[in-house]
Amino acid sequence: MMHIRDRPSFVHSAALVETEQIGVGTSVWAFTHILNGAIIGSRCNIGGQCFIEGGARIGNAVTIKNGCSVWDGVSLEDEVFVGPAVVFTNDRRPRSRAMAPSRYSTRRWISPTVVKRGATLGAGAIIVAGSTIGEFAFVAAGTVVTGNVPPYALVVGVPGRAAGWVCECAEAISFVRSRARCDACGKTYARAANSVHRS
Amino acid sequence: MMHIRDRPSFVHSAALVETEQIGVGTSVWAFTHILNGAIIGSRCNIGGQCFIEGGARIGNAVTIKNGCSVWDGVSLEDEVFVGPAVVFTNDRRPRSRAMAPSRYSTRRWISPTVVKRGATLGAGAIIVAGSTIGEFAFVAAGTVVTGNVPPYALVVGVPGRAAGWVCECAEAISFVRSRARCDACGKTYARAANSVHRS
Amino acid sequence: MMHIRDRPSFVHSAALVETEQIGVGTSVWAFTHILNGAIIGSRCNIGGQCFIEGGARIGNAVTIKNGCSVWDGVSLEDEVFVGPAVVFTNDRRPRSRAMAPSRYSTRRWISPTVVKRGATLGAGAIIVAGSTIGEFAFVAAGTVVTGNVPPYALVVGVPGRAAGWVCECAEAISFVRSRARCDACGKTYARAANSVHRS
Repeated sequence: MMHIRDRPSFVHSAALVETEQIGVGTSVWAFTHILNGAIIGSRCNIGGQCFIEGGARIGNAVTIKNGCSVWDGVSLEDEVFVGPAVVFTNDRRPRSRAMAPSRYSTRRWISPTVVKRGATLGAGAIIVAGSTIGEFAFVAAGTVVTGNVPPYALVVGVPGRAAGWVCECAEAISFVRSRARCDACGKTYARAANSVHRS
Repeated sequence: MMHIRDRPSFVHSAALVETEQIGVGTSVWAFTHILNGAIIGSRCNIGGQCFIEGGARIGNAVTIKNGCSVWDGVSLEDEVFVGPAVVFTNDRRPRSRAMAPSRYSTRRWISPTVVKRGATLGAGAIIVAGSTIGEFAFVAAGTVVTGNVPPYALVVGVPGRAAGWVCECAEAISFVRSRARCDACGKTYARAANSVHRS
Repeated sequence: MMHIRDRPSFVHSAALVETEQIGVGTSVWAFTHILNGAIIGSRCNIGGQCFIEGGARIGNAVTIKNGCSVWDGVSLEDEVFVGPAVVFTNDRRPRSRAMAPSRYSTRRWISPTVVKRGATLGAGAIIVAGSTIGEFAFVAAGTVVTGNVPPYALVVGVPGRAAGWVCECAEAISFVRSRARCDACGKTYARAANSVHRS
């Protein structure tokens, strides 16, 4: 018997999907273009007007809202949420290729970006290449991420600055003597040095 | 005799318009996708590469430039101007749906946004869900709006901060003893407490 | 014999190119719409989901990544790099046209933007109309440019502020007694008053 999650992927008739590496139950909406070589998991929802380049890796159950671009060198782990108009990058010092043909003749110019499991990237966030965004981190809308973001951290602003911590359910949590309990869902956390984990 | 404003709506052949609730004289440009259930008034101009979701409500004579997304829960009143790449949102604590299936099983997660008559949202502005933007307010390009904006207010920055007042013609106005007169068009305003109105 | 750069322009079958003023060897990708009256040079690479309006002028060897809008009044000189989701504008005081029909009845409302040769506009940058961005300047990702940017300048933030200088190869350079040498490529520069040039 076919599990509901085993439905084949849905590709809108006005989308262009050139990769064959796309999991079951993934949807791709209109005017999105996914190039050959992109790797996309199962049960994702990829909104319209997105661009996903060969070399991008997207896990399972990832949500990508409309108007995002995901480049070669960008990896999104399972259950990541990417808000509308989020912009990834893969080059810290871009110039027009005609100015720097030797630089672009290999792939060494690519700085990889990793977004860990369950993280949220808010609407219009910009992720400067070379950043790792930790598990369940929450990048507020409009943030420009210029470096690594710890797990469970909330970052806001231009450039992005630490502004607190969030629960896996996305509500803000506060630590008292290195312990926190989410008022909304009851999950508990422990903080050690600069890292936070479930307790 | 047919008034010039009674022309039927124009839908570019590369646009997808699934709603039937769209007024006369409205134009929709290429690679824009409007879902069933969106309500759109008359004489609007909706640029290309936009996404308008079911549940969005758009008044008359609204301009939406290219690359905008308008979600369920967002209402734009008459004569609003939405610059290119403006990003609306409807969820203050988004996560991938697989992480929070019960949260997304009802519509209570939606925080509504209202943009009142005549307001301007500058290019690339990001509107965090739950905000009301007052009549004729002017959100500068690149502003991240995180709360309510009073009528006739100018807001700038990340997060958006009050930076002055504007006339209905969009020029800056300055109050002297609670009175202002626009140097450009002559309209006059009175200010009481934190509100501004035509006088 | 045909030089490799003399290949005809490539237009993706899902792009709409209405201008005939487009140079040899230029590529245009899916879901991009270029209007009649746009002028585009040779050897450009114009990514998908872009919009280029009549009156826009784009030089040779310009790179434009996905999701950008380039309006009437915007000029990009040769070898400019425009990152993904960069937003140009051409109106400093926009309102819905229905509110200001006389204003929009001529073209005097357009404030021109010029991006000089070799400049980089980072991902998601917003360029407020009326700005001139100097040769080889580097606008960091997420910057809101609200005025002129000198040649070779690095600008960051909202609003954009001067944050240093860059080499033509895009690496940061530092001046010592009005002289700088790029550690990466060896190019040398001289600084006089507020201007920088190759020495």
